[in-house]
Amino acid sequence: MSPKITGELLRQLRQAMRNCKYFSEPIQAYIVPSGDAHQSEYIAPCDCRREFICGFNGSAGTAIVTEQHAAMWTDGRYFLQASQQMDNNWTLMKMGLKETPSQEDWLISILPENSRVGVDPWIIAADQWKNISRALTSAGHSLVAVQDNLIDAVWTDRPERPSTQLRTLGLEYTGISWQDKITALRTKMTERKLTWFVATALDEIAWLFNLRGADIEYNPVFFAYTIVGMNTIRLFVDLKRLSDPALRDHLQLDSPSKPELSIQTFPYESVYTELQAICAALGPKDKVWICDKASCALTQVIPKTHRSPIPYTPLCLAKAVKNATEIQGMKMAHIKDAVALCELFAWLEKEIPNGTVTEISAADKAEELRSQQKEFVGLSFPTISSVGPNGAIIHYRPLPETNRTLTMNEVYLIDSGAQYVDGTTDVTRTMHFGTPSAFEKECFTYVLKGHIAVSAAIFPNGTKGHLLDSFARAALWESGLDYLHGTGHGVGCFLNVHEGPCGISYKTFADEPLEAGMIVSDEPGYYEDGSFGIRIENVVLVVPAKPKYNYRNRGSLTFEPLTLVPIQVRMMNTELLTQKELDWVNEYHRKCREVVGAELERQGRKEALEWLIRETQPII
Amino acid sequence: MSPKITGELLRQLRQAMRNCKYFSEPIQAYIVPSGDAHQSEYIAPCDCRREFICGFNGSAGTAIVTEQHAAMWTDGRYFLQASQQMDNNWTLMKMGLKETPSQEDWLISILPENSRVGVDPWIIAADQWKNISRALTSAGHSLVAVQDNLIDAVWTDRPERPSTQLRTLGLEYTGISWQDKITALRTKMTERKLTWFVATALDEIAWLFNLRGADIEYNPVFFAYTIVGMNTIRLFVDLKRLSDPALRDHLQLDSPSKPELSIQTFPYESVYTELQAICAALGPKDKVWICDKASCALTQVIPKTHRSPIPYTPLCLAKAVKNATEIQGMKMAHIKDAVALCELFAWLEKEIPNGTVTEISAADKAEELRSQQKEFVGLSFPTISSVGPNGAIIHYRPLPETNRTLTMNEVYLIDSGAQYVDGTTDVTRTMHFGTPSAFEKECFTYVLKGHIAVSAAIFPNGTKGHLLDSFARAALWESGLDYLHGTGHGVGCFLNVHEGPCGISYKTFADEPLEAGMIVSDEPGYYEDGSFGIRIENVVLVVPAKPKYNYRNRGSLTFEPLTLVPIQVRMMNTELLTQKELDWVNEYHRKCREVVGAELERQGRKEALEWLIRETQPII
Repeated sequence: MSPKITGELLRQLRQAMRNCKYFSEPIQAYIVPSGDAHQSEYIAPCDCRREFICGFNGSAGTAIVTEQHAAMWTDGRYFLQASQQMDNNWTLMKMGLKETPSQEDWLISILPENSRVGVDPWIIAADQWKNISRALTSAGHSLVAVQDNLIDAVWTDRPERPSTQLRTLGLEYTGISWQDKITALRTKMTERKLTWFVATALDEIAWLFNLRGADIEYNPVFFAYTIVGMNTIRLFVDLKRLSDPALRDHLQLDSPSKPELSIQTFPYESVYTELQAICAALGPKDKVWICDKASCALTQVIPKTHRSPIPYTPLCLAKAVKNATEIQGMKMAHIKDAVALCELFAWLEKEIPNGTVTEISAADKAEELRSQQKEFVGLSFPTISSVGPNGAIIHYRPLPETNRTLTMNEVYLIDSGAQYVDGTTDVTRTMHFGTPSAFEKECFTYVLKGHIAVSAAIFPNGTKGHLLDSFARAALWESGLDYLHGTGHGVGCFLNVHEGPCGISYKTFADEPLEAGMIVSDEPGYYEDGSFGIRIENVVLVVPAKPKYNYRNRGSLTFEPLTLVPIQVRMMNTELLTQKELDWVNEYHRKCREVVGAELERQGRKEALEWLIRETQPII
Repeated sequence: MSPKITGELLRQLRQAMRNCKYFSEPIQAYIVPSGDAHQSEYIAPCDCRREFICGFNGSAGTAIVTEQHAAMWTDGRYFLQASQQMDNNWTLMKMGLKETPSQEDWLISILPENSRVGVDPWIIAADQWKNISRALTSAGHSLVAVQDNLIDAVWTDRPERPSTQLRTLGLEYTGISWQDKITALRTKMTERKLTWFVATALDEIAWLFNLRGADIEYNPVFFAYTIVGMNTIRLFVDLKRLSDPALRDHLQLDSPSKPELSIQTFPYESVYTELQAICAALGPKDKVWICDKASCALTQVIPKTHRSPIPYTPLCLAKAVKNATEIQGMKMAHIKDAVALCELFAWLEKEIPNGTVTEISAADKAEELRSQQKEFVGLSFPTISSVGPNGAIIHYRPLPETNRTLTMNEVYLIDSGAQYVDGTTDVTRTMHFGTPSAFEKECFTYVLKGHIAVSAAIFPNGTKGHLLDSFARAALWESGLDYLHGTGHGVGCFLNVHEGPCGISYKTFADEPLEAGMIVSDEPGYYEDGSFGIRIENVVLVVPAKPKYNYRNRGSLTFEPLTLVPIQVRMMNTELLTQKELDWVNEYHRKCREVVGAELERQGRKEALEWLIRETQPII
C-alpha cells in the first residue's frame, strides 16, 4: 500500500482557503469530515472528500488542514491503515490515546488569535457543529459555514452523485405498508405535539417508503430527504427516478388513496428552500422534529424556538424493532448465508493444502457462493478476509499488496455479510486448518466465553446494551486480555449493516434500551499484534426470556442467534469451558445442523452438508 | 409514622411567594432542593428545609410549591417512606418511573404563561440551575435567584448553624501534610493553567487541611470554604473556632513556614464578597477552577470567561486515592468494626430466642459495641436494622412505630458503619437465626454470587466502575430478579461514607476510572416487598491484579475486601455456587478468622471468637 501524494492538492486547498470567492475573509483552517449530507457511515464516491484530500479510505476519520499543518483523526481500528495510506504531509491523530489532542484542542493550540475555521455545513452534524463552535468561540476563534465545498473546488474529476434504479418492497418483505408507517409517525408527532418531521438519514427514508436503492455500495439506500407534516408528505429525490410505473403505483403518486397520504415530490436539492418556506409559515407553537445528527445546514434553517432536536428519530426507533415479517426474512437470509459459508469452509479445507487460496480469492469465493443464493443483492460491507498477522488489523480489507495465502499454519479470520431482499447478514468466523497453538486456542476460548456470556445473558426489559458489554470481556479480563472495539451494533433488515439506536459497547453513547425484535451483533475478539486476530460474531435477535421469577412484572429478555454457522471446535480449549458453556455450544451446533442441514440437503450441496455434520458433532 | 401537617406552612410559604419584600415581582413556583450551600448529602438541622416544608426526611428529594400544587420528587429507595411522611397537600413524584414527569416538565405543564420560578441560589448546584433554567426559558418561563430563603422566612424555630470543635489529624493518620496537599493542588493548577481554585465541598476542605469537625451528624466535617491561589490560601470559617492553640499550631496561623503556605482566615459568610474581590482583580487570562456541582450563587460570582467548571475537583480525585497510611488506617478500622459485629451477632444469637431484641435495641447494641473500640468517634450513617418486611425498605431506619422484634422466623438485615479516627466503615450482613426458606436462601445466594462476581473481578486499568455493575446482577437477572439501586459508592477515610468520584452503578454518571488505592463498597441486594430484604456489603480496596497476560502493558486491577465479617453460610444454597465461588467464600472466611480472630483474642472477647470460628468453618 503506497501513500497518496498530497502536496499539490494541499497547495490548491490552501489557496482556496485564502480565496475570497468563497467567503468574505480567508479562513485559517478547514475541517473535512468523512460523512455526506445525510451523515451516512458508508458514502458514495462523490462524497469521499476526506479520502480524496489525504488518501485514507477507512470508514471513520476527520481531516483538518491549516496553513502550516494537515492532520487526520481516526480510531484504533485504523491506525495502521491510515499510517500506510497517508504521505508525510499528514499527521495521524490516534483517537482514544491519552496523548492525542481533540480536534478542538489541537486547533486552539496551533491557530493564531482570532482565527476562522471553515467547514461545509452540509457534511457536519448539528451536534458536532455546536461542540466545535463552542470550544473555538471560548478560545477567541470562530467556526464558519463555507457553503461551497472547498474540496469539490479542487477535485477536478469528482464523480457524479449516483441515481440508481429504485426497488419497491411489498408487504411480504416489509410486513407494514408505508402508509401505515406514516400514520404511526404522525401518532408519535401528535403525542409529542410536533407539527413537522424532517428525515435526513437515508436508511430511515428507504425504510419509511419501503423502497431500496443502490446509490451507496453495500447499503441499499438512495439519496433523498423527506419532510412529513400532519397532512402532507414531501419527498426530495432526483425526479428522473420516479418514471417507473410500478414505483409510481407503489407510492400512489398518481392516485393517492387519501389526501393526507398523497406524496408531493421535489428535486433532491430543493429541500433547503422548501424547509425555509415551511419554517416561514410556522405558527408560534409549531415545532419541527429533527435528529441532532442531521446536517448543520438543514438544522439551522429551523428557527431555534421551533426546533425539537432528538438523538434518535421515531423512524430510527421504529425501524430497529423488527416485525414478524422482517424477523422471518432475516431468519431466511441467515440460513442462505450459512449455506454459502458452509460451502466456503468445506471448499477451503480442500483447497488450502494446495497453497492456491489467498485472502482475496477466499473473499471472492465467499461472494460467488453467496451470489448463488436466492434474492442475493450484494455484500453488506467489504469482506474482511485475513490470515495470521493481517487478522490483527481490526478492519482489514485484503489488497493485492497485502494479500496472504491461507495455510495450515496460520489463523484465518473472515468477517463478511450480504444483502438479500429478505434480510442483511454479518458473520465472523475464525478458523485454523492445521493445528492451532495453545495460546491461539486459549485466546479463542476466552473470546468464545465472552460471546456466549452475551448471547445467553438474561436481563430485564429496559436494559441498555452497554450494560452487557462487560459480559463479553470478563473472561479475557481475567487473563489480562481485552479488545479495543465495541461488542455489537444494530443490524438493519435489507438495510445498513450498522444501524442505531441500540448496540453493545463500553462507550456509553445514548443507546436506547434493548427490546424484543431488535437485532444486534455479538462480536467480541482478541488481537495479537503481528501474529493473529480472533473474532466470533453472530447476529442475534432480542427475544423475551422466561426465567423462574418476574421481578416487578418487568419481564426479561435474552438473545436468539440468527447466524447459524458452526464455531470451530478445533480452535477451542474445551477444558476452559464450563458445563453451561459446553451445553450452549452443543445446542447451537445442533440447531445449525438441523436448520442449515435441511437447507443444504434441499439445495443438494453434499460436501457442505458433510462438512456441517462433521463440524457440529457434540463435544462430550 | 404519621405525616407532617403542612397546610398552614404552605399557606405562609405561598404568602411569601407573593410578598414583594423578597423580589421585584411575585414568583409562581418555589423550588426547595434538599442540599445545603455545600451540596452535602447529609445536612445539618438548620439546612433541613425540604423536610421542614413537606415532612419527608430521606437523604434525597426536591420539593416544589406553586400557588395550587405541592409536589416532591424522590427515588425508589424512598417511595414508601415519603408517602408515609407527607400529608395529602403533597403529591409524591416517583423518580425513575416512566410516567413520572421531570421537575421541569411538570412545572411547564402546570404553570401559567411567563411564570417566574424561584430558588435559593446557594442551595442549588450550578449545573442543575443551568438545566432547569434552560428548560424553563425555552417554555417561556424564567428561573429566578431568590437571595432570601423563603423557607427560613416561615421557619420560626430554625436551629443555629453548628460550630463544633475542630480536631487536627497528624501524619500518622493522614500520611501527608496539608502543606504538601496544597503544593500538589498548585501543581495541578499550573498544569491546567489555572490561577484560582474554589473549594466548596465540606469533605474536600476537611481532607485538605487534615481537620475534622462534627457539624453534620455522621460526617466529620465543618462548615467552611477555601480559595487557593498560587500564593495565597483563604479559609472561610466561623472565626471563633480558631482559638485553640493546637489548631492554630496545626494550621501555622501564627508562624507560617513559608509565605505561600500562610493561611488567611475570614468569616464563613464573607466568601461571597472575597470571591467578588478576587474576580474583580483577575487578569484577562486568569481562570478560576470550580466544581460544576458548587452552588449557583458562588459559581455565578465568577465571570463566565474566567470560569473553568469541572465535574470533579482535583481534591476530590486526590482524596479518593488513599495513600499507604490511610489504607493502613482503614484496615485497622475495619478490624475493630468486625470485632464489634462478631460480638453483636454472638449476642443476637443468644438473645433472640428470649424475644427481647428489637430492631432499635439491636442497632443500639451495635453502636454500644462499636463505641468500645479504640478511636471510635460515632456512626457513619443511621443504622439500618430491619426485620422481615422492613428489610425490603431499602433505606429503612427503625422508628418506635415501625420497630419489629427479631425472631427465629424472619430474615434480619443490618447495614451499619462507624467513624473511627483511623477510618470509616460501612457493612451490611443479612442473617437468619432459625431456618430460612428455600426462596430466601435462593435469593441470598444470587446476591452472594453478584457480590463475589464484583469482588473477584479482574479488569484493566482505566476501567470505570459502571462497567462492573452488571457483574453484580447477572445471577439475579438469570432468574428474573434485580435490585433498584447501584452496586457501590466511594468511601472516605474518617470522612463521608459516600464520596465521589468513583462508584459502581448502572447509572452512567461521570464516574472516574477506578485506580489502585480507591475504596468503594460492593453491595448488591434483593428486596421482596412485604416479606424480606437481602444485602451483602463489603468495603473493598482497589489493588493491582497480576493475571497471566498484560495486554498492551495496561495493567490490571481487582478488589481486596477490607470488611472482614463472616457471611452467613446458613443463608446460602451452596448447591447453586460454583467451585470458584465456594473457594472465594472459604478464603474470605479464612482471612476473617485469621485477622479478626487474632484481634478478638487480643481483646479477650471469647464468645465472639467462638462465634467467629463457628461461622468461618470451611464449606466442603
